[in-house]
Amino acid sequence: MKLGMIQMQVCADKDENLRRAKAGVERLAAQGADLVVLPEMFCCPYETAAFPMYAESFGETVTETLSTIAREYNVILVGGSMPEREHERLYNTSFVFDRAGTLIARHRKAHLFDINLPGRQVFCESDTFTAGEDITVFDTEFGKIGLCICFDIRFPELSRKMALLGAQLIVCPAAFNRTTGPVHWELLCRARAVDNQVFFAAVSPAADESASYVAYGHSLAVSPWGDVLVQAEEKPTELLVELDFAQNNEIRASLPLLTGLRPELYQL
Amino acid sequence: MKLGMIQMQVCADKDENLRRAKAGVERLAAQGADLVVLPEMFCCPYETAAFPMYAESFGETVTETLSTIAREYNVILVGGSMPEREHERLYNTSFVFDRAGTLIARHRKAHLFDINLPGRQVFCESDTFTAGEDITVFDTEFGKIGLCICFDIRFPELSRKMALLGAQLIVCPAAFNRTTGPVHWELLCRARAVDNQVFFAAVSPAADESASYVAYGHSLAVSPWGDVLVQAEEKPTELLVELDFAQNNEIRASLPLLTGLRPELYQL
Repeated sequence: MKLGMIQMQVCADKDENLRRAKAGVERLAAQGADLVVLPEMFCCPYETAAFPMYAESFGETVTETLSTIAREYNVILVGGSMPEREHERLYNTSFVFDRAGTLIARHRKAHLFDINLPGRQVFCESDTFTAGEDITVFDTEFGKIGLCICFDIRFPELSRKMALLGAQLIVCPAAFNRTTGPVHWELLCRARAVDNQVFFAAVSPAADESASYVAYGHSLAVSPWGDVLVQAEEKPTELLVELDFAQNNEIRASLPLLTGLRPELYQL
Repeated sequence: MKLGMIQMQVCADKDENLRRAKAGVERLAAQGADLVVLPEMFCCPYETAAFPMYAESFGETVTETLSTIAREYNVILVGGSMPEREHERLYNTSFVFDRAGTLIARHRKAHLFDINLPGRQVFCESDTFTAGEDITVFDTEFGKIGLCICFDIRFPELSRKMALLGAQLIVCPAAFNRTTGPVHWELLCRARAVDNQVFFAAVSPAADESASYVAYGHSLAVSPWGDVLVQAEEKPTELLVELDFAQNNEIRASLPLLTGLRPELYQL
């Protein structure tokens, strides 16, 4: 399967962001991408004040546009994430559409990003968002794919659960920053891949020096052995990489981890 | 607390290995070490055939010597690991002695190392060893310390459990090899530290070109932010590093992970 990742520059204009996403999908589809992943908050500035202003319910402009793009370019489309409104609540949500434009998965970020490093990085998603209540794994013609969003990656239990539910690849729209990115971004992606013997792909917005929250970029895909297959720098970049899920089984046969688990020892 | 690590050369002579361990503790204690960690199988070649030949029960030569060394040099001593015999069974076991030479913990490797990469690395601990049944965290004057052995590190659930039981530092006598070492050794140590916001220290034998299993060396200590504080190369090396467990709480307050866990979502 050919995986495409769009590390796009996110601006304040929602329609322009949707145009950029579409243009990226068009270019990657032309190169044969089967699955395309957009970054976290691909159509909304990553700011607490922006989330309620940009929020939409499922079926409004953003999700309708994503569905149309998936169908038009015949790709499975992981729509990064967006502020989703349902009743009185907001979620940081990723919607996934199949090649026909049909919704096949929805992940609401289950671990909200709260960080307090004064002078370095401060953010509190739980001021505006409600946490999701579900683990998300969806079926494709290539095998099962797990889906989590940014801070979710920090909890190894979640990736483990997705792997045990059959995920061969975990995709993670995300937006680390220049404080945590250099020390933790690649480390966590590689660790989740190696521990679970799955492919792992994380897709960030490009860095925007003018933004209040400067994303780290460095979108990447990692093999089940922990090798970084492809990685962007900070600027807008599209990545395309071919993955062979058979590698997961080969590695699991050589170095049995999932079958070596001893859940009776470490129940939480 | 001052942590000492002894990346010693292990030979076929058990008494000589004990002398080397003692000499290392003596040197580190002279520099103020409070806790000293020996490597996995510090007194026995890492070979399936050697394990039953070198195996001892608690109270025999190896553990008596370790107790004496701890008392003589007034250190807390994590006795790497050794083949332990109890009744008809063998375990890969680490014994811990306090400054008075009293046994305060015993960890039996809970995940046995089976790997089958023909031409690169093949080993099957489960041919000879029985897996342990316990999570191991022990008290010291500095705080609680978790203990696991080599392949145990590959299971993030185990480190998580030790952290939730209060471990501020996890120590891991280990012996990776030149196939898995370069790709996974530092990665896993750093990931366990970052995920759990604890210090992590892994201690390997030095590489021995003449051995059937060549250890990777590279003993290291990692901070709760994931920084490598100190790391050996492959040759015999003693490391000493000062750790301040207050850093764990500072990082946990800035970036709340353990309190952000959602066990209801990912029960195994």
